[in-house]
Amino acid sequence: MAFHLGSLGFLTPFNFDTYQSQVTQVIEGNAAIILRSRLEVKVVKEYREKGSVEEMSLVTNGDKTMQYQVLNEVVVDRGPSSYLSNMDLFLDGHLITTVQGDGVIVSTPTGSTAYAVAAGASMIHPNVPAIMITPICPHSLSFRPIVVPAGVELKIMLSCDARNTAWVSLDGRKRQEIAYGDSIAITTSCFPVPSICFRDPVNDWFKSLAQCLHWNVRKKQSHLSSEEEEF
Amino acid sequence: MAFHLGSLGFLTPFNFDTYQSQVTQVIEGNAAIILRSRLEVKVVKEYREKGSVEEMSLVTNGDKTMQYQVLNEVVVDRGPSSYLSNMDLFLDGHLITTVQGDGVIVSTPTGSTAYAVAAGASMIHPNVPAIMITPICPHSLSFRPIVVPAGVELKIMLSCDARNTAWVSLDGRKRQEIAYGDSIAITTSCFPVPSICFRDPVNDWFKSLAQCLHWNVRKKQSHLSSEEEEF
Amino acid sequence: MAFHLGSLGFLTPFNFDTYQSQVTQVIEGNAAIILRSRLEVKVVKEYREKGSVEEMSLVTNGDKTMQYQVLNEVVVDRGPSSYLSNMDLFLDGHLITTVQGDGVIVSTPTGSTAYAVAAGASMIHPNVPAIMITPICPHSLSFRPIVVPAGVELKIMLSCDARNTAWVSLDGRKRQEIAYGDSIAITTSCFPVPSICFRDPVNDWFKSLAQCLHWNVRKKQSHLSSEEEEF
Amino acid sequence: MAFHLGSLGFLTPFNFDTYQSQVTQVIEGNAAIILRSRLEVKVVKEYREKGSVEEMSLVTNGDKTMQYQVLNEVVVDRGPSSYLSNMDLFLDGHLITTVQGDGVIVSTPTGSTAYAVAAGASMIHPNVPAIMITPICPHSLSFRPIVVPAGVELKIMLSCDARNTAWVSLDGRKRQEIAYGDSIAITTSCFPVPSICFRDPVNDWFKSLAQCLHWNVRKKQSHLSSEEEEF
Repeated sequence: MAFHLGSLGFLTPFNFDTYQSQVTQVIEGNAAIILRSRLEVKVVKEYREKGSVEEMSLVTNGDKTMQYQVLNEVVVDRGPSSYLSNMDLFLDGHLITTVQGDGVIVSTPTGSTAYAVAAGASMIHPNVPAIMITPICPHSLSFRPIVVPAGVELKIMLSCDARNTAWVSLDGRKRQEIAYGDSIAITTSCFPVPSICFRDPVNDWFKSLAQCLHWNVRKKQSHLSSEEEEF
Repeated sequence: MAFHLGSLGFLTPFNFDTYQSQVTQVIEGNAAIILRSRLEVKVVKEYREKGSVEEMSLVTNGDKTMQYQVLNEVVVDRGPSSYLSNMDLFLDGHLITTVQGDGVIVSTPTGSTAYAVAAGASMIHPNVPAIMITPICPHSLSFRPIVVPAGVELKIMLSCDARNTAWVSLDGRKRQEIAYGDSIAITTSCFPVPSICFRDPVNDWFKSLAQCLHWNVRKKQSHLSSEEEEF
Repeated sequence: MAFHLGSLGFLTPFNFDTYQSQVTQVIEGNAAIILRSRLEVKVVKEYREKGSVEEMSLVTNGDKTMQYQVLNEVVVDRGPSSYLSNMDLFLDGHLITTVQGDGVIVSTPTGSTAYAVAAGASMIHPNVPAIMITPICPHSLSFRPIVVPAGVELKIMLSCDARNTAWVSLDGRKRQEIAYGDSIAITTSCFPVPSICFRDPVNDWFKSLAQCLHWNVRKKQSHLSSEEEEF
Repeated sequence: MAFHLGSLGFLTPFNFDTYQSQVTQVIEGNAAIILRSRLEVKVVKEYREKGSVEEMSLVTNGDKTMQYQVLNEVVVDRGPSSYLSNMDLFLDGHLITTVQGDGVIVSTPTGSTAYAVAAGASMIHPNVPAIMITPICPHSLSFRPIVVPAGVELKIMLSCDARNTAWVSLDGRKRQEIAYGDSIAITTSCFPVPSICFRDPVNDWFKSLAQCLHWNVRKKQSHLSSEEEEF
């Protein structure tokens, strides 16, 4: 049960000012639950041997794997480099495209209204079982964001013609460098995050879109308008 | 099993030239099936009585309802009017927003790569159980397309401050006028369309994106480039 | 000197409530002027003879030309047809591209904040001597709007492979059908519209963007935020 | 006279393979010239005294100013920080908006087809006297790119509520940190770059758009199509 105290409030529908009555209501069972899916992310770093050949033979299978649960998004970008990143994107083992640009965002529906929407993605309701893939400033004019089914296995690796390393971050944290040979494996986590709705999953979401993102908020045109040429 | 003979080929992965070997393969069971969801659409036209009060009382419940199965999209637009359309959009009975612009597209994932993508939507794989809502040239700068879960009940009606009627069409056909009081109810159909994959649902889709929409097709930059200022 | 009485107010910076003091100020010379460029549009309709060959020979050069001054935009769209429009776009006599989609908008900088912005265009200050070309729901993912110098000669005609006629409208009015062989010639008009600024051309414009289009209006994030994962 | 040797070729219309005949042609006077505008950029770094008060008094007016000529764009971004950047944008001395997002691009028309287009900008012909301002992944859904007249004075500074410094780079080079109090002043340079056209400014540009950016390149739909529902 999340209260917002000053943040944007996308994940925190409850107002702290009236917390007592709200907690009471929830305890009495008057609350809907929404399960927010997460991504399970494995960052596999190849063991890059700087020692002698003999040493290297000792560390076969010496890859280092770190695993994370991600609520919003995995971002892979070019980091401090001034060259474009070049990353291969695999889906269920097949190379589906190469991302050339500032980077790529793999997000949950929850994350679709965070960084992904700033990069041009459509917004996905948290109840849709899906993963969103959004390029960041892609070199290609036609690289529109795509939505794939929850459960697919994504993998991101540096392309063989990448001129520099990339950087990965998970929910804006754990930032680390990705070198040639390293990989980021992403799939839907078995551990979604349950959260208590203020009203219900649909109303809460649309209220958040309007309040946090000003989604489709516009100035009403008066009926008396004689200025039709202005759209 | 759909062959393409000259059309764009999004729904027709098979090439007619080699139809014999392809049919044989499918008959032998070497084929994956994808279920493409459809929308069930009910257009309810209010009985607009032009006669006397006595007559009207005889036609209580005189609404006329037509029902359709839609594979790509329902489009509601301003038709020949030069005024913007003004339509209220309801989700599970709640007014979620008002569309002011050229119109709105409610599409299946299959339809997300058709008219919706031209109107700026992200592209959704057919295996994602979702419905996409995309405004057409919306007046509001912030009206980004949204993706809601399959199974929700959508309803579109003219706003009370609409200056003119709207027009609905279903998969580009059955075009008809929508007046004040009429409604268009849309939900996920119980009758998806099975179609035979050329290879598998994922590969077929990405191949279609590349071939039919030139998705992320770009000129490769040479390695010798010394022209970094050009991005 | 334009007052707004209920319309959106993009072209009407003055508030009617205080008209007396405002008129006084302007008369005293405390006013900047902005010249809003217009488009000169010639719609040339080929004489389509329905009579005999003899009659036709009598009406050589029988084309009908209508000329218009346009403040916002020329729109060419598919009208009531359910097929995409197919229009060739010429610049200074050269075919530069073919528009396949719902249509195309040719607008002044003034018009860039009207229909064009709804179709995805960037917004151009009225003091930039330019013409904006914006596709409406283009079939091609890569068809980004373009800005060309004021003074170029544009011409729009139906493509030879268009399946149906198109419709042109000028500032949302004078709607008429365009058949194969007809043409729409567009250039910058020699007669811009002077209008009196409320403050100055730059401030007025940015105030209009904020008030009429909610340009970059957003909810401020509090400093105490601990919710960085939400972007 | 610029030949392309493997780069994307946006600024290099000439093919090296036939350089002899091409050089001859140009020498004989068969060549159009285009003047590509540049930006004059002043980066003013406040003198940040780490010593004692006495020392500080000695370095009044100790700001350090560096000046650059920029052909494509000035980029101000959040650099390695995981917080959004917060930058105030001034035009002719007035605060016009605050950029909250990954950053902002101020580009020439030449640069509009480089990084700016990847960030969502419209494309501006080099002959249009204008400056383009494009946000990078803006937090606000309604932050559309804008085009202002050449010659305006832009200034970018960190907002007072920025949580971290920003980084500026000029044509992808000279990357440096911008702290609170520093400023970046940008205007149109008096020194445009003349370059020799292959054919003429208009044809060269549209050829570049098609070849380098695949602008509006699409698969032609056959006339025999019976698949109209697919758009």
